[in-house]
Amino acid sequence: MKTLTLADARSVIAAAEAKAEEIGQPMNIAVVDAGGNLVAHVRMDGAWIGSVDISINKAWTSRAFDITTKHLGENSQPGQDFYGILASNNGKVMIFAGGIPLTRDGQVVGGVGVSGGIGEQDQAVAEAAAASL
Amino acid sequence: MKTLTLADARSVIAAAEAKAEEIGQPMNIAVVDAGGNLVAHVRMDGAWIGSVDISINKAWTSRAFDITTKHLGENSQPGQDFYGILASNNGKVMIFAGGIPLTRDGQVVGGVGVSGGIGEQDQAVAEAAAASL
Amino acid sequence: MKTLTLADARSVIAAAEAKAEEIGQPMNIAVVDAGGNLVAHVRMDGAWIGSVDISINKAWTSRAFDITTKHLGENSQPGQDFYGILASNNGKVMIFAGGIPLTRDGQVVGGVGVSGGIGEQDQAVAEAAAASL
Amino acid sequence: MKTLTLADARSVIAAAEAKAEEIGQPMNIAVVDAGGNLVAHVRMDGAWIGSVDISINKAWTSRAFDITTKHLGENSQPGQDFYGILASNNGKVMIFAGGIPLTRDGQVVGGVGVSGGIGEQDQAVAEAAAASL
Repeated sequence: MKTLTLADARSVIAAAEAKAEEIGQPMNIAVVDAGGNLVAHVRMDGAWIGSVDISINKAWTSRAFDITTKHLGENSQPGQDFYGILASNNGKVMIFAGGIPLTRDGQVVGGVGVSGGIGEQDQAVAEAAAASL
Repeated sequence: MKTLTLADARSVIAAAEAKAEEIGQPMNIAVVDAGGNLVAHVRMDGAWIGSVDISINKAWTSRAFDITTKHLGENSQPGQDFYGILASNNGKVMIFAGGIPLTRDGQVVGGVGVSGGIGEQDQAVAEAAAASL
Repeated sequence: MKTLTLADARSVIAAAEAKAEEIGQPMNIAVVDAGGNLVAHVRMDGAWIGSVDISINKAWTSRAFDITTKHLGENSQPGQDFYGILASNNGKVMIFAGGIPLTRDGQVVGGVGVSGGIGEQDQAVAEAAAASL
Repeated sequence: MKTLTLADARSVIAAAEAKAEEIGQPMNIAVVDAGGNLVAHVRMDGAWIGSVDISINKAWTSRAFDITTKHLGENSQPGQDFYGILASNNGKVMIFAGGIPLTRDGQVVGGVGVSGGIGEQDQAVAEAAAASL
């Protein structure tokens, strides 16, 4: 199983922090490995305490289904294919922007989850993080 | 981290009770501190027992995301930025009116949660409570 | 069903606070009614945040089984009659000192739960509270 | 309420990692703030995935009761004052070595939790971490 190391997770988090500072919004940032298990998390000073859980679960969700949580969310609205998926997995499925699979050589090796702002902000920070690996 | 005391919580609850009596609707009222931890709760005589949990979690939610639960609710409808957030944090995220961050000198120091009536009533009581600090 | 009012709960809590101050140990104090539902809770300044849940659940347990949690605990040790009871009721059964049924005219009308010190302290405060009704 | 920053948490984690490397046992290390909310977590390469939750909850427990989880564990054995406490707080109370309150100027400002080895190892790493603040 191709996965990522703590050093990888830290560099992903560093990229996320840089972007969060650039846009002026403190964030929770979490990285999971290929097994969906947490490798590292940080809550930047001033970031929402309710977003600790959300960042970790966005990271998990993006690896669990190898999809961005933004895309999953679009398919989880009423009437869509995955409507109701948030009832599964004991509340770990997050269906709004900010979670992105982490890939290396075209293979998913983990996921990053960002939470602390509006959807657009979370997504921008997660994209910067994912692009850094 | 600026927070609030039990004496603060009691005066917030007293303001909420006064408003609840004025509108003739018994309420559950809860106050959390800056860490999101419960400081005090009361259930007025005749108030719903199902609202104990809701009042506590509205208070938590308003501090956890530094936002009113009414506003969070408006952004958590299908198609909105935070649709699905109620699956996070083990069922503690309340997305309807009645939770308001408590601020002092422009800083969030806790949250108040009110539950026992329709949204408009919960919100009116929570607003009276929040304004009293 | 004979039960208690918010005014009753507040006078029980006041008695508990007075005792807690006398022994110099800040406490969480909770009161449930005859239905086992929370009527009021306070966390005194400086009391443990981990004891919010414990105080509420000691109050619930003492009403749920019409027994002190100290007595229930003595019967819940390995080899005793109720060993394992803490696995029931979704983690709400507390089996150590500090929870006492509240009675009026010989009838149980609720329960008080105290948490914040060692067993002896919690018990002393709960006894002062229960005696006040 | 005195608390700690992400920079503080990172320096505590760095001290823990150095000690874990010295004893040759990869660890999960978590830091919570004064409100008991997670500030940062790392899982060192090769550390147990089952210890993610344990490290976070040891950190929470040590702050929630302002006590080391080792000491709490000694008082939570059958017949002791806190026997049964692990049923409270929805499974977040850890009662074995590896969690230590973080103090500054004699005040508890958070907690550190370490999990990944036997009790003696977790405790040694947590002590090195706590001493570094």
